[in-house]
Formats: sequence, structure tokens, C-alpha cells
Amino acid sequence: MNWTLETIPDDHPTPSVIISESIAEKNIRSMQAYCDQHRLKLRPHTKTHKSIWMAERQMRAGACGLTVAKAGEAEVMSSVCDDILIAYPAMGASRIARVTELAKRVRVSVGIDSRDAAEHLQNAAAAKGICLGILVDVEVGFHRTGVASCESAIRLCEYLSNQKNLYLRGLMCFPGHILPGAPDERWLEYEQALGAILDGLKAKGISVETVSGGSTPTARESHRNRYLNEIRPGTYVYNDVNEVRLGVCDWDDCAARVLVTVVSMPESNKIVVDGGSKTLSSDRNAANPDAGFGFVVGYPSAKITRLSEEHGEIHIPDIDLEAKALPKIGDRLWIIPNHICVCINLQNQFYLQDSENRLVEMPVNARGLLV
Amino acid sequence: MNWTLETIPDDHPTPSVIISESIAEKNIRSMQAYCDQHRLKLRPHTKTHKSIWMAERQMRAGACGLTVAKAGEAEVMSSVCDDILIAYPAMGASRIARVTELAKRVRVSVGIDSRDAAEHLQNAAAAKGICLGILVDVEVGFHRTGVASCESAIRLCEYLSNQKNLYLRGLMCFPGHILPGAPDERWLEYEQALGAILDGLKAKGISVETVSGGSTPTARESHRNRYLNEIRPGTYVYNDVNEVRLGVCDWDDCAARVLVTVVSMPESNKIVVDGGSKTLSSDRNAANPDAGFGFVVGYPSAKITRLSEEHGEIHIPDIDLEAKALPKIGDRLWIIPNHICVCINLQNQFYLQDSENRLVEMPVNARGLLV
Repeated sequence: MNWTLETIPDDHPTPSVIISESIAEKNIRSMQAYCDQHRLKLRPHTKTHKSIWMAERQMRAGACGLTVAKAGEAEVMSSVCDDILIAYPAMGASRIARVTELAKRVRVSVGIDSRDAAEHLQNAAAAKGICLGILVDVEVGFHRTGVASCESAIRLCEYLSNQKNLYLRGLMCFPGHILPGAPDERWLEYEQALGAILDGLKAKGISVETVSGGSTPTARESHRNRYLNEIRPGTYVYNDVNEVRLGVCDWDDCAARVLVTVVSMPESNKIVVDGGSKTLSSDRNAANPDAGFGFVVGYPSAKITRLSEEHGEIHIPDIDLEAKALPKIGDRLWIIPNHICVCINLQNQFYLQDSENRLVEMPVNARGLLV
Repeated sequence: MNWTLETIPDDHPTPSVIISESIAEKNIRSMQAYCDQHRLKLRPHTKTHKSIWMAERQMRAGACGLTVAKAGEAEVMSSVCDDILIAYPAMGASRIARVTELAKRVRVSVGIDSRDAAEHLQNAAAAKGICLGILVDVEVGFHRTGVASCESAIRLCEYLSNQKNLYLRGLMCFPGHILPGAPDERWLEYEQALGAILDGLKAKGISVETVSGGSTPTARESHRNRYLNEIRPGTYVYNDVNEVRLGVCDWDDCAARVLVTVVSMPESNKIVVDGGSKTLSSDRNAANPDAGFGFVVGYPSAKITRLSEEHGEIHIPDIDLEAKALPKIGDRLWIIPNHICVCINLQNQFYLQDSENRLVEMPVNARGLLV
């Protein structure tokens, strides 16, 4: 697939997300190969695609299981996987009820960072007579969730290892603060944060099977932390402007594009397309928040300056128009979104383009689920 | 309804959007009363609620018709309304096909700003043997879409009035640049921009029936522009932080709230809730972009500092904790979103709370439609 607009039927709806099957497959295989090479288990986060079809491809390529954020997503993904990690403190009565119900059918683990959460889950698991796997979420520098100190983490693990209906599987963390190619000191801090907890657990005779890291930007450097034996990247399956700007992939590795139509040309050098914040999301570029709301393929200097709900305003400077004419009203363009996970979550469906350029409509199965 | 958490069942799913029927009804009636008083037609923009049920309430209250942005939304809303304005340049083969098909059944008008758009629509309308209403979108200061000069607007109107299958209904504009309580000069500019075009049309013997303005922030000041005879506000039905911060409504006028659960308390004065960018959207507050991602009810000084996809990180300063205790893990909170239109668009359903505090699940009928 070479993303030629000629292969897309004139009456294909826009704005719509088109996924290159071959690029997605290549991304899946390449991440699996990295993990295999470094003896890491790969547990892809399905938040990016929310697609059963894509999850099945990841499982077939060698994933050890799947990661999700919500109970509803876990339920959906249980149709293709029987070992699911909810890498999220699954609190709230409705969510806990569904997680424990699902655990009757498949292996379910939950990432938590508090004794309160442990008590909620133990009580619910006991009431249903099931056992839940637990990963203790430890803070390693991103400061989102996670037990903040080594001592607290050890204490929580100790508490968990005494619960009848919880099974302490190990540690998880999210190294969202580490940029690709970060210096050794940064990785050493990260490694030591996990090492100190693992040493403390060992001293207490508590062994754990899993130490799970995450994030696509750090994924292919995970061997720099010798304690990790599992990773949970999500975005790598499709990639996006964030990943390209971080230097972890090229434009050719972006498997997802939004097809848009030019609907207005109100000023010279300005076009308006039918992809706005309800299609692309308002997520800004992580590395450069003022760089605009996506990448306009074919017009490398163009900037998506402002989004309304259904309008994307694009300024195309003269330098781009030396290489390629200004599009006309009714013409179509490709946009690569800043953040593909939130873009996909806005869609009810995507179109998978196969090697023969056929477009197959597929549902975003797990989008918009409540818990 | 007084938004007491006690009336929400413990196992109600979170994050979820709850709409107060009584506040929404009050907002609908009050905007209709303003319009009736000033002899303005009200054509509510359904982008905010995307709900057939809510659109029907607006129609029953006296709306002259409905406004939508997409062809798919027009199709959905045609079940309760036979006079629909697509306030959007409906370009692209798929969209045009659906717009012209719908025009066989109900009165459909489209807002356009170019001769190219006119030609596309004329050709399609002629091929189907139907007639489309047209509003010429004129630029009055927001610089999104719209014909930029008075002369070009008159020329486009003249062209349209000669098309067999297009019926020039009038002018539309989006005064998104005008803040509530703007000085008279600003409104005078706005009035003169429309007046000059209308005078020019009169001189050519072209009369138009509709001059349509928009935007909730300016809605209740629309009488300050004597040419307007229709307005298209959308957000007023629910309101949000943007509207409160602009001073056009109070917190009590916000009909929509997101119910969230506290899932983590990783630091003192910090909680993490299950509403992130996939629930609230990343839309920042229009008046103060760095003020956080929504309003935490009961904790007026709290700030939603960062959103991940399913995490909302909230810092609650000590001053708020003098009045109300820090919530615990598993507790629930209300968040009023910055921008309710994009928040609703992320939901598959909302819960309507009636006067007896019953929660009725209702679909967001027109969300995520393709064209």
C-alpha cells in the first residue's frame, strides 16, 4: 500500500480512518521480534486500536496476553485472549463487579497502588469465590499513579501476599517521563527504583513473576532495565505524529491516517478540511504543543492551526506549493494525527486497506465503553 | 434535582455523563423565550447533545428547525424535524449524495462559502431532481470559513440565485470572535458587515428570507445586530465551564456533569479519577487555557492538572479541604467539563435524571457518524 488517493473510491466517506494492514502487521511483527530477542514478554495495550481483529493479530504474533484500561475493554478482548491485565486501578462498584465476573472465565490481573484498592478487590473477589492477579503499580518518575516509596510498595506487596483471593503477580510501572535515547543515568534510576523493591521483597521471601514496563517511546530500549520481563506498549501498532517527532519511528511506520475532504478555502494559502476535534481530538503534539494538530501528508510545512469540532484549518505556506498544487474544494487529503489512540477512540469504525487496496470496514469494538 | 450523590446508585457506572432533565428543560425554555421576545427564530445546533430526545424537546419548545454539522446528523435529526440546516460546507461525494438524498424527504439547507461548493451542490441536486436551500456563509471576524469580502458574498449570492436546483435562502455567519458584553463598536462592525451585503443584494433585486447568527456566548445579545432574524446556538442546552467562565451562565445552569470515581491517591492533596481525555476530551478552557481540564464540583480551588486517556489527575489545595474532606478511593465526584459538546461526542450514552431522580439511559444518537 502506498497511500495513493487514486485507490480510494470517490464516494468513500470522510472524515474516516484508514489503516494499512501491511504497515500495522509490520509494526506488530517488529515489536514482537524486539521482545523475543530480549526475552521480554509483550502484552500490547489495546487502548490504541480497541479492535478485536487487531488484538488477535498481536496474539498470533506472539503476545503473552493483552493490556486494557477498562473493564469493558477486558470483556471485549476476552473473546481473543484469556490472560488480560487491566493496567489501571479498577475501582468503583460497577467496575469491580464486572472485573470479578470476568475473572470467572479468564485470567484477569489488575494494577493497583493502594491498600484501599486491595481491600475493595479482596472483598469482591472473596464474595465471588474467584482469585484476581495483582500487579503493584509503582511510581518511577511520571507522577501519575503508583506507590511513591520503596517501603510503601514492599508493604503493599506484603499485604497482598496475605490475601486469600488476590495473587501478587508482580510490579508494573509507566515510564512516561523517559524520552527515547535518554542518558544511562535516567535508565539507571529507573532500574534501581524497581531493583530496590525487588530486593526488599526477596528479603521477605516474596517472589514475583512479573515486572512490567510500558510506553511505546521507551519500548525498544526496555533491555536497558534488566528487571523488566514484560512490556505493555500500545501506540506502536499504528504510530502517530507524537512517535515520529520523538524519533521512535518514521512517517512510513504510521499505519493510520485520516482521510479528509477540503470543504472551504476562505483565504489564500488556507484550506479548511472536514476533520476537526471530533475526528482528530484536541491532543497537542507532546514534543511541541504549538506545532499544530496533525501532519498534512504531501505538505510538510503546512500547519493545522486551529480545530473546531468539525473544521480543521490548515495554513499551507508557499514553499509547499512549489512542490504540489494547493488542493481544491472537494479534494481529499491524508492527515496523520498527533495522538492516534484518542483519534481511534472517536471513531465507530475504521477501514482496513489490504494488500490489494480493498477497504474493509471494521468496528472499533471497545470504544466508548462505560467502565 | 440537586446533584446529591446519594441519589445515584452505588453501582452506577463511571465515568458517565448525567444530564439533569430539569436544568436542560430550563435552558431550552429560557433561550426560546429570549428568541420569542426579540422575534428571532431559534434553530438549535444539535452538535452539543446529538440526541433525538433532546432535539424533540427543542422543537416542542418552539424551535423553527434544527442545525447540524454533518449529513449523518441531519439524517438522524430528520426523525423529529423536517427543516434542517447543515451549517457546514457539505462537500465530498459521499456527503453530497446523502444530503441530496435526504432533501427528497425534508427541507434541507446548506451553508457554503464558495462557487465551487455551489457548483458541486447544483450538479448533484440537478441529477436527483431536488432543490437545496443555500445560506451563504459570510466571514464576520472569526476567520474560520465564510466569504471574506462583501463583493464576493454578493457575487456568490447572485450566482446562486441563478441556479435551478439551489434556492438562496440567505446569509449565515459565526460570530465566534465576539465575547459576551462586547462593546458597541464590535457589534456595530458585525451589523455593518451583514448590512453591506444585504444592501448590495437589495440593489440587485435579490431578497433573502434568513440572516442566521450563531454561538451560545453571543446568543442572548443577538438583538444588538438588527439584521439577524435567526440564531443557531448549541451549547446553551447543557452549558459548561467555558460558558460559566465567559459569564453567560452560572454553575446551576450546567445541565451536564460527568460522574467519576477516585481510583488512586498517589500523593497528599492529589487524587486520580477515572475521567481522562477519552471522557472529558483534551479541550482546554477557552478563556484560560492553563486553568485545567474541568471543574471539580465541591472543590472550587481544585485543578485537573493533567489528563491521560483514562486518568484525570486532580490537585486539591488545603483551602478546599477546610470545607470538605479529601475524597477516598472508591468515592465519586462530579466534574463539569470545559467543553460539553466534545465530551458528549465521546459517549455512547448519557443518563437523564428526571424530577424523581430516576436515571434513564439514553443514546447519543448522532455521535461518531461518518459524513
